[in-house]
Amino acid sequence: MAEDAAFGRVTTRSNDPGSNSPDTMAPLSPPNAAYKALVHHTRQTALLSSTLDLLGWDERTYMPPAGGPHRAEQSAFLAGLIHQRQTAPEVGAWLEELAESDLAADPYSDAGCNIARLRHDFEKQSRLPQRLVEELARAASLGEQVWQEARKSDDFSQFQPLLERTIALKREQAQAYGYEDSPYDPLLDDFEPGETTANITRVLAELRDRLAPLVAKIAESPRAPKQGILSREWPTAAQERFGKMAAGEVGFDFSAGRLDTTAHPFCGGGGPRDVRLTTRYQAHDFADAFFSTLHEAGHGLYEQGLPAEHFGLPIGEALSLGIHESQSRMWENLVGRSSAFWRHMLPKLRAEFPQAAGDLSAEAFYFAVNESRPSLIRTESDEATYNLHIIVRFELEQALLNGDLKGADLPEAWNQKYRDYLGVASPTDADGCLQDVHWSAGLLGYFPTYTLGNLYACQFMEQARRDLGDLDAQFESGEFGPLLDWLRTNVHAHGRRYTAGELVERVSGGPLSCEPLMRHLETKFGALYGF
Amino acid sequence: MAEDAAFGRVTTRSNDPGSNSPDTMAPLSPPNAAYKALVHHTRQTALLSSTLDLLGWDERTYMPPAGGPHRAEQSAFLAGLIHQRQTAPEVGAWLEELAESDLAADPYSDAGCNIARLRHDFEKQSRLPQRLVEELARAASLGEQVWQEARKSDDFSQFQPLLERTIALKREQAQAYGYEDSPYDPLLDDFEPGETTANITRVLAELRDRLAPLVAKIAESPRAPKQGILSREWPTAAQERFGKMAAGEVGFDFSAGRLDTTAHPFCGGGGPRDVRLTTRYQAHDFADAFFSTLHEAGHGLYEQGLPAEHFGLPIGEALSLGIHESQSRMWENLVGRSSAFWRHMLPKLRAEFPQAAGDLSAEAFYFAVNESRPSLIRTESDEATYNLHIIVRFELEQALLNGDLKGADLPEAWNQKYRDYLGVASPTDADGCLQDVHWSAGLLGYFPTYTLGNLYACQFMEQARRDLGDLDAQFESGEFGPLLDWLRTNVHAHGRRYTAGELVERVSGGPLSCEPLMRHLETKFGALYGF
Repeated sequence: MAEDAAFGRVTTRSNDPGSNSPDTMAPLSPPNAAYKALVHHTRQTALLSSTLDLLGWDERTYMPPAGGPHRAEQSAFLAGLIHQRQTAPEVGAWLEELAESDLAADPYSDAGCNIARLRHDFEKQSRLPQRLVEELARAASLGEQVWQEARKSDDFSQFQPLLERTIALKREQAQAYGYEDSPYDPLLDDFEPGETTANITRVLAELRDRLAPLVAKIAESPRAPKQGILSREWPTAAQERFGKMAAGEVGFDFSAGRLDTTAHPFCGGGGPRDVRLTTRYQAHDFADAFFSTLHEAGHGLYEQGLPAEHFGLPIGEALSLGIHESQSRMWENLVGRSSAFWRHMLPKLRAEFPQAAGDLSAEAFYFAVNESRPSLIRTESDEATYNLHIIVRFELEQALLNGDLKGADLPEAWNQKYRDYLGVASPTDADGCLQDVHWSAGLLGYFPTYTLGNLYACQFMEQARRDLGDLDAQFESGEFGPLLDWLRTNVHAHGRRYTAGELVERVSGGPLSCEPLMRHLETKFGALYGF
Repeated sequence: MAEDAAFGRVTTRSNDPGSNSPDTMAPLSPPNAAYKALVHHTRQTALLSSTLDLLGWDERTYMPPAGGPHRAEQSAFLAGLIHQRQTAPEVGAWLEELAESDLAADPYSDAGCNIARLRHDFEKQSRLPQRLVEELARAASLGEQVWQEARKSDDFSQFQPLLERTIALKREQAQAYGYEDSPYDPLLDDFEPGETTANITRVLAELRDRLAPLVAKIAESPRAPKQGILSREWPTAAQERFGKMAAGEVGFDFSAGRLDTTAHPFCGGGGPRDVRLTTRYQAHDFADAFFSTLHEAGHGLYEQGLPAEHFGLPIGEALSLGIHESQSRMWENLVGRSSAFWRHMLPKLRAEFPQAAGDLSAEAFYFAVNESRPSLIRTESDEATYNLHIIVRFELEQALLNGDLKGADLPEAWNQKYRDYLGVASPTDADGCLQDVHWSAGLLGYFPTYTLGNLYACQFMEQARRDLGDLDAQFESGEFGPLLDWLRTNVHAHGRRYTAGELVERVSGGPLSCEPLMRHLETKFGALYGF
């Protein structure tokens, strides 16, 4: 006989949501009832948030197609419960009571950090009227559908009304949040807490001006990698094994994580010891799957490195999108696209892909995975040109928000900036200003965190090299543990204790800067392209 | 560059949990605010329940091992929220207001059914003190761990204190629920609403007494299937393809469902159009994976056949565990273990497994998958002996609950009944009274639903044969649609409109009876074993 099914209204297996006693949490000294209650409440909300994350992961990996409408209802309801709990009046009361307490005195202590960040988040959230929250959610949900259609039919006019509506709502959101200098500030703060528009405008403008001559020198170089290496036949089952092996070698813990297949790679999960990478495989494209895997593994290493005992509290949470991206770019680019990495990996590559890789040298493969040329699509661009794609978007979304750019004029402005910064222009809007989902989903202020990630990564890497000696020699012999341990100690362990700016200053000894990134790019591409 | 990660505290994508307007639901006439509110509240609770189901599915399929402790917290918290919502005072107030309304007048109308079942569930749940709910949950959670250890080390003494504690709690639960005849009644009602201990005791005693001579006749027969067929080499990838094909042929909709691998097969899911079957594969066991797949597909067909527009309400819910099991047994045994089924499937079996099945005839294979012999393990037993395993458990759990049997005396009582009913006795408790998880998980009153499922299935099948003509001819030509449509109309479409007893009476024209099952078994095994 076959085994049993798991149906039924088993009424006796429910637990009291109040029974997750705060007494079992990390000890607090001095005890403070308000703080205990705040911590307990926040951790319970995080149980819902991590459940919502899992629903999202499932939706993008295994959910059957017809499950979509019900999943949307489940997710919206959970998101609403989470928002209600985050902005509940008792949270405000606890925070009020704690404001002047000893626990809050040192914002760099565990409790002080938790209180400060939760107050910041609570106050920001509470400034949004419920109506605006709902309208933003509706616009985002609708927006992704409209965007998909508009992109598919290469028709900006379908997208324009939604874009204008979204910009108006984001302006209203910025007003509701409040700001001093720029309406972009409080939106950026949602993704990169504590960062300012003025600061990154300055750094990104310098970066833009310094990237232009680099890109020109690459374009003028007579050198090029051997063509067609990456589009050989790379059997997908072997790609999956090789990617898993590499993610495991750099330290991703598969007993606390997975790797699955999806349409648009992401890193998600269900909890502190449940981190899920995704990628996608095509037989004639080695790079897409492999570097997506390493990129997401970088995100996953950060999640696995956060202090699990503080899960759900700021001190146990990822700091910002920029810092998250610094970890993914670190492993994808600074490790995974290094010459030393491929000197280590080449024998394994040949063993896994005897046909495709049998004739390759480490140096030829290294050049192939670092080919640089100005292109139209951000997600397919290389290390040297990538940040110019971001700077285009950063400048345009500010202009849209400020009213300096009208929605109708976006396609022309987009192409002008691409011509100016990259020397290319898209014949279609589908591969132009319609290529990214972000604006349709209401994500304004998100794009610069990609470049912040690249900047932070290089700032961290220079310090890691100072602290750890010859990292290339370590990579070449397959030793990735020292770098990971260094990141665990210097970045992961701190959760949201510092702002990103403070963390970078603490770790690298200086403020946000494009020097380390430029040094990295000039050295690397100078060697490859001979200048 | 690799694709983007999906991190960040995107504060604008939450939805108001109150915005899921009841106006979009099935129209109600006459409108009644209390009913609308009750429906809205109940459907929202079902969003949480289906989320909890998905967490359970994930835990048993893809969750990385280290994710367990966090998953337990997520699940317990969600279960607590669900219990809170189900027993919320406003639910009682709405039900009170509706008790005398026109909407409740006809308990077989959609609204009347919803009100009656929700009142029944609410009143039952509300009778349990919160302390008891928590103690039962703790005992169940602890119980599974203790049981696993005790079974592994074949040590009943490890299990006995927990069993005694569970029995005491279940007695307390029955007292809290209240009952007239037997404390077993309200526990049984949790799984088989409206059924009584007296009724099934009568039917199961008759079944027991009529199975004994059948089993004896099989044992005395000189016939036997050709040995070793099912333990040939059946490559697991081909088993998976073959099982999926068969589940699809009988009507399981894979656009609204999946089939995955697990340790202990079950059917779960995430919503009305998201039904997930699981099975497990071993190369030298064809039957376990295949019949598990068909069994779970039977559960899945029921879930896919429930009226999706009423999801979350009693009228859109499965009726009982017994009716659920009738659907799984129908497809597993009455269809999947029929001679006509294998006459249809044999060419496909040979094509998929040329080595293992190349020399097989349909009749030889049919006999192989129906070999009958008294055995120790319920989940491995055949159609003829299976119900005796259940009757042993049904009689023992009643005796434990009534106090007629002491926990310490369970192993001896177990073996005595196995000797009496099946003529076998286990040398170990691991393969004796420790073989099932149910009691450790607090599931008393659950076992008889397995046999009810077998009885209902045969009662339905006899009527289906009267209504649909020569079903065997249909199966032999691969036509499973008429039977499925018949089940959709006569069983699935009604949700919880009737009790199981009422439904059986309506569909088959008579009350619960062991006649159809006995006729089926005597005919089938008489032909196979020559009596």
